[in-house]
Amino acid sequence: MTYCVGMLVEKGIVMMSDTRTNSGVDNISVFRKMFHWNVPGERIISVMTAGNLATTQAVISQLEERTKTPDDRINTLLGAPTMFQVATEIGKLVRETISERQSANGLTGKGKFTASVIVAGQIAGMEPRLFMVYPEGNFIEASFDTPFFQIGETKYGRPIIIRGYDRSMSFEDAVKLLIVSFDSTLKANLSVGLPLDLMVIERDAFAPTHEKRIAQDDPYFQAISSSWGDALKSAFHSLPDYSFYSK
Amino acid sequence: MTYCVGMLVEKGIVMMSDTRTNSGVDNISVFRKMFHWNVPGERIISVMTAGNLATTQAVISQLEERTKTPDDRINTLLGAPTMFQVATEIGKLVRETISERQSANGLTGKGKFTASVIVAGQIAGMEPRLFMVYPEGNFIEASFDTPFFQIGETKYGRPIIIRGYDRSMSFEDAVKLLIVSFDSTLKANLSVGLPLDLMVIERDAFAPTHEKRIAQDDPYFQAISSSWGDALKSAFHSLPDYSFYSK
Repeated sequence: MTYCVGMLVEKGIVMMSDTRTNSGVDNISVFRKMFHWNVPGERIISVMTAGNLATTQAVISQLEERTKTPDDRINTLLGAPTMFQVATEIGKLVRETISERQSANGLTGKGKFTASVIVAGQIAGMEPRLFMVYPEGNFIEASFDTPFFQIGETKYGRPIIIRGYDRSMSFEDAVKLLIVSFDSTLKANLSVGLPLDLMVIERDAFAPTHEKRIAQDDPYFQAISSSWGDALKSAFHSLPDYSFYSK
Repeated sequence: MTYCVGMLVEKGIVMMSDTRTNSGVDNISVFRKMFHWNVPGERIISVMTAGNLATTQAVISQLEERTKTPDDRINTLLGAPTMFQVATEIGKLVRETISERQSANGLTGKGKFTASVIVAGQIAGMEPRLFMVYPEGNFIEASFDTPFFQIGETKYGRPIIIRGYDRSMSFEDAVKLLIVSFDSTLKANLSVGLPLDLMVIERDAFAPTHEKRIAQDDPYFQAISSSWGDALKSAFHSLPDYSFYSK
């Protein structure tokens, strides 16, 4: 499993992903699920992937044209005129990759080769945009009505985002919110695991404003993880008490 | 879908269930999923069901021997010597009911006839006990290591129970905790719906200590639902702030 969230705020976009991949509970590994490309001053594109690792790695490798020698490579995403075109291109690659694997030689594996992708970024002269690309290659775009997308193990960490989100929040608060959401998920599902990858895309910066890998020993993560339990308990006790005798 | 939680505390057991059943999003109904039987001063048994409604209703009807005229009925649960025997009996009925439906006349419906049951209660001279019965008829018992069972849509409402639970909590706090858990779930999944059924089983009472149907217009539910958002936000803001510049 996996947990990734892309969140739109007025100041830009915050992306966070875990790094655990697993095949059963006895075969776990750390793989990066967040990738980005940028042309300083012109565009930044960030991608997070969930699903079959061979599929998602194949998609990323094709985006980077790793079939060619380094000098011959042209990353299509860096030439796409709009973020819509970027999402379309990624959708096409995802659909083709899954479809090839599923039909290859009539072989049908036990696993499914499906994958989902969150795509975020901004190209100069246009707004920052956030998309979710489905395995079929189609996609939807976030707006302030539904300002975040989750992929993978989405449920445990969803209520706190719904309650805590505010479009005018600072990047620092947005990161804090995502860390709480990830901590709730990590506590409930073994197939989501540290370290976490974090990237902040500030409007009109066209370069990562902030990037970090958050490991088990990260003091801020530890502080949030340990103090959130107490903070929740205080919140809980601040609520009105139930009485057996009221109507 | 469904959401039911049975929770063991030192003082006894608290049970809460929603009442929504749905077949698609355009065919929703209200059905009771919580049932209880008791012999005053001797035993109380409470059951909550999730899964295929025809299956769960058939199980309950067979428990009550509704194939017989009222005078001839003997509820097996009321004669079982131990709660273990009660869970065994329910497990047997669940397994048989599912297995009959699935093999009947070689017909295979689109739906699955599966069901899960939470069983709680106490018989005089023994401890209060809480079980989760699987569709296969086998079951597990709660202890203070894992003091609650959820069935149905379990994920959204789980983190708050994990954080808020305390075995020595009052029944009132336990009810408050479950209402918060249900509210988070209701906000995220349309297939879980009000009203909620609540029952409190106090140790050595052998009768329901408290029973209530909590509807949309319940003032306590409304107070929790509206103040939990604010309480969570305060909890969130009480956490240390993230900084881009710390290591």
